[in-house]
Amino acid sequence: MSTHLLRQFPTLKALGAVSRELRFPWSYLSTLAVTEPSSPAVKTAIPGPKSSTMKRDLNLIQNTDVVHFFVDYDRSMGNYIVDVDGNVLLDLFTQIASIPLGYNHPRIMKVLTDPVNLAAFANRPALGMYPPSEFAQILSETLLSVAPRGINQVQTMACGACSVEHALKGAFMAYRRRERGGSPPTQEEIETSLLNTPPGCPKLSVLSFKNAFHGRTMGALALSHTKWVHKLDFPSPCWPFATFPTLKYPLEEFADENNAEDARCLAEVQDKIASAKRAGQPVACVATEPMQCEGGDRYGSPNFFQGLQDICQENSIALLLDEVQTGAGASGKFWLHEHFYLRDPPNLVTFAKKMLTGGFYYTPDMRPTEGGRIFNTWTGDPSKVIMLKAVLDVIKEERLLDRTADTGIYMIEILMAAQNKYPNLLSNSRGLGSLAAVDLPDGESRDKIVGKLRSKGINVGVCGSRTMRLRSTLTLERKHIDIFADRLHAALKEM
Amino acid sequence: MSTHLLRQFPTLKALGAVSRELRFPWSYLSTLAVTEPSSPAVKTAIPGPKSSTMKRDLNLIQNTDVVHFFVDYDRSMGNYIVDVDGNVLLDLFTQIASIPLGYNHPRIMKVLTDPVNLAAFANRPALGMYPPSEFAQILSETLLSVAPRGINQVQTMACGACSVEHALKGAFMAYRRRERGGSPPTQEEIETSLLNTPPGCPKLSVLSFKNAFHGRTMGALALSHTKWVHKLDFPSPCWPFATFPTLKYPLEEFADENNAEDARCLAEVQDKIASAKRAGQPVACVATEPMQCEGGDRYGSPNFFQGLQDICQENSIALLLDEVQTGAGASGKFWLHEHFYLRDPPNLVTFAKKMLTGGFYYTPDMRPTEGGRIFNTWTGDPSKVIMLKAVLDVIKEERLLDRTADTGIYMIEILMAAQNKYPNLLSNSRGLGSLAAVDLPDGESRDKIVGKLRSKGINVGVCGSRTMRLRSTLTLERKHIDIFADRLHAALKEM
Repeated sequence: MSTHLLRQFPTLKALGAVSRELRFPWSYLSTLAVTEPSSPAVKTAIPGPKSSTMKRDLNLIQNTDVVHFFVDYDRSMGNYIVDVDGNVLLDLFTQIASIPLGYNHPRIMKVLTDPVNLAAFANRPALGMYPPSEFAQILSETLLSVAPRGINQVQTMACGACSVEHALKGAFMAYRRRERGGSPPTQEEIETSLLNTPPGCPKLSVLSFKNAFHGRTMGALALSHTKWVHKLDFPSPCWPFATFPTLKYPLEEFADENNAEDARCLAEVQDKIASAKRAGQPVACVATEPMQCEGGDRYGSPNFFQGLQDICQENSIALLLDEVQTGAGASGKFWLHEHFYLRDPPNLVTFAKKMLTGGFYYTPDMRPTEGGRIFNTWTGDPSKVIMLKAVLDVIKEERLLDRTADTGIYMIEILMAAQNKYPNLLSNSRGLGSLAAVDLPDGESRDKIVGKLRSKGINVGVCGSRTMRLRSTLTLERKHIDIFADRLHAALKEM
Repeated sequence: MSTHLLRQFPTLKALGAVSRELRFPWSYLSTLAVTEPSSPAVKTAIPGPKSSTMKRDLNLIQNTDVVHFFVDYDRSMGNYIVDVDGNVLLDLFTQIASIPLGYNHPRIMKVLTDPVNLAAFANRPALGMYPPSEFAQILSETLLSVAPRGINQVQTMACGACSVEHALKGAFMAYRRRERGGSPPTQEEIETSLLNTPPGCPKLSVLSFKNAFHGRTMGALALSHTKWVHKLDFPSPCWPFATFPTLKYPLEEFADENNAEDARCLAEVQDKIASAKRAGQPVACVATEPMQCEGGDRYGSPNFFQGLQDICQENSIALLLDEVQTGAGASGKFWLHEHFYLRDPPNLVTFAKKMLTGGFYYTPDMRPTEGGRIFNTWTGDPSKVIMLKAVLDVIKEERLLDRTADTGIYMIEILMAAQNKYPNLLSNSRGLGSLAAVDLPDGESRDKIVGKLRSKGINVGVCGSRTMRLRSTLTLERKHIDIFADRLHAALKEM
């Protein structure tokens, strides 16, 4: 085990030592009691005839160009997804990284069949006005039990994009509150806020990063810079963005270059903050993923994020870390940013996907001082929080963070071995826990190998322009990775 | 039965005739089998001691200034909500108008306890990539079975605000597609779209209306103009808005004035469209609620909406009707805009709340021509669509649209009677189906009577600056309204 990742993340280095000792116990963690298939089984082309018919039908109702195949969710189990044509695939994309424990996990089934929970599913409340009994306790036992260190405020939301949108509001309010120095808003501010004009709707901005992705609603989309299909034709606030570091791996080998790259990007952040201020559109918040996913699985260094926090604090700007895809244990720690050893908690941490509910954590200075500021009818869904409780219990009971760190290390070993064997096809094997990726020479070859893997019973995703993206559940085991390795080599041989 | 509403809406006039015949059958529609309390029962001040303790606890985690009370959702039943202190209230606000059939409805319970549905609740898919088996059929039997006349395209979303955000994209894409005249986007458009700048992110706008409310994400919020707490301190695109007609009731009595008001507002819409174009920010979409809810339960006339559609069509601008609060049968027709007899379907119709899932309908010209344009990880939640199926079945089987139209007429009779008895306190009784409202002299007296009603076991809402807002389920019966009438008169007597 000597990949660049251990060098890149000091924490992982420690974890690597631990996980070697803990390498085998997972295999007899039979408490999962998930009856998974023993291996993939592909009977038809994918999409098969039934999927194709269903796609044609659905296409009469909405654009289905990105539908991959139709799923038999009754028969999907654990880490295996079963399509409507009966094809059984090992799922290493898991609904765009949003399935924490696998399909039809028995503990989730238990939640769904326990009469105690029925009312929570039957009656979705207007959570901000009429919360359910003991809601503070429910939040304490779930979302707050895994809150980033030093944070004890949380707001649920319905989806990832809404979480980002409302998290930004915390930053905007904090910024203006500071500017007012304790005074209440003026009558002019109150009146102009209804007119979409300053000073009520101030010319503030959010600094994001090239290749970032934060969601598809207008505010979140203004922070996103990955694909034109996300953005073309949609008006956008002209907010600034800076360059996210493009690091070379192993970090140590390129230490000077990487440090220089970090410094260059941090200097650009400072420049953009200064120029936004000069342009009369000051930055209230810096928003970034702790690792760019949609943008191509691009890791930054702890050094970079520590520097980013310094800049934010020096300029009284909120730091938002968008952990929608990287949270909930995906990296082998509960939040990916734990790998960065930040001095203080980020001001805003958004989540969704594997957390089953959207939402965000925030430091006290981001908390609204008036009621109804962060609000909508549903603001989340308590039934999802109840399901999350089961997920968190299983993560804890089965030590899935350690297990995910371990399987992640094994996945990198497998990818590195393949990369060493096929250096003209694979490069930049990288990953943390359930997050793993490898680059192909170009988009065409990437798509080709993804198709070959699918036909061999492995479902994977893509990101960036030429990256194969792997996103497993937290219950993946080494035996699954062995199956993946086998099919990967078979696919590479055919390339 | 001679309220202004019958005069205002020709449809309702017809419905009124029908509903008089159908006045009584509802009382023995026992198929509901909901064991409701027979009347409200208030034991403590509201919020009571348990609610107050829970509020204090929750306030440590998030701002709870707008929490009314904590709810015992296990014990809430039908049209009655039970709080954690054991107070039983007739609920005429129903989670901000989002409960279609009442609490713990047996048909919803049946969905939740049917093993056939378990997988849909256990495995939330990335719907745009991996839809469940027969998803087209599921949509056909649910959302499309109640689609606005002439519309056969639908997209699910997670919440109301996201529905508006993504519906707007349909309009923006259609506008730019037309401008391109069939040509593909240029390289410059594709590149600049990632930079938040024109031509990729064009200077297009959406025209909304004063007192409108469409949601809290950046795009939806730019269309909203009701309360400063929604908007203050948040940057906003400076999109134009026009005046929504302030009509006098009964319409016939003020026919000349109202026609003049409609004409004045429509002329203003035309002016704003023209001036936005001159300012280099042309209007791609006109967005409006068919009745402004949050803004104070303000009805427009069929005349106004027909005129609005004419203007949109003349200018090749999409018309978005936001039926998040008014759809799903709330008005006595499935969509409130059915009362307007528009010549053509609106281009975009958004929904959420009583529909249990967010989403929007759209005409074929709004349909994206590329995949992945209207997309996010979840794009809704099929488990909510399955619950919606039960709701729609009950609406149909129990003829709840007719019943809602009927109870709505009765509600107006009750409000008018109270208004006639207390003309100094009540004015402008108005409503359609489950949507009803009456004005108080000012916000203070409005809040006072809302508090008095609550202490007498009736939960109601507010909107605008001085309006009491009633939003019942579709299963409300005349017997419930009689209880409301009794408590309303008792409260008015104390004022």
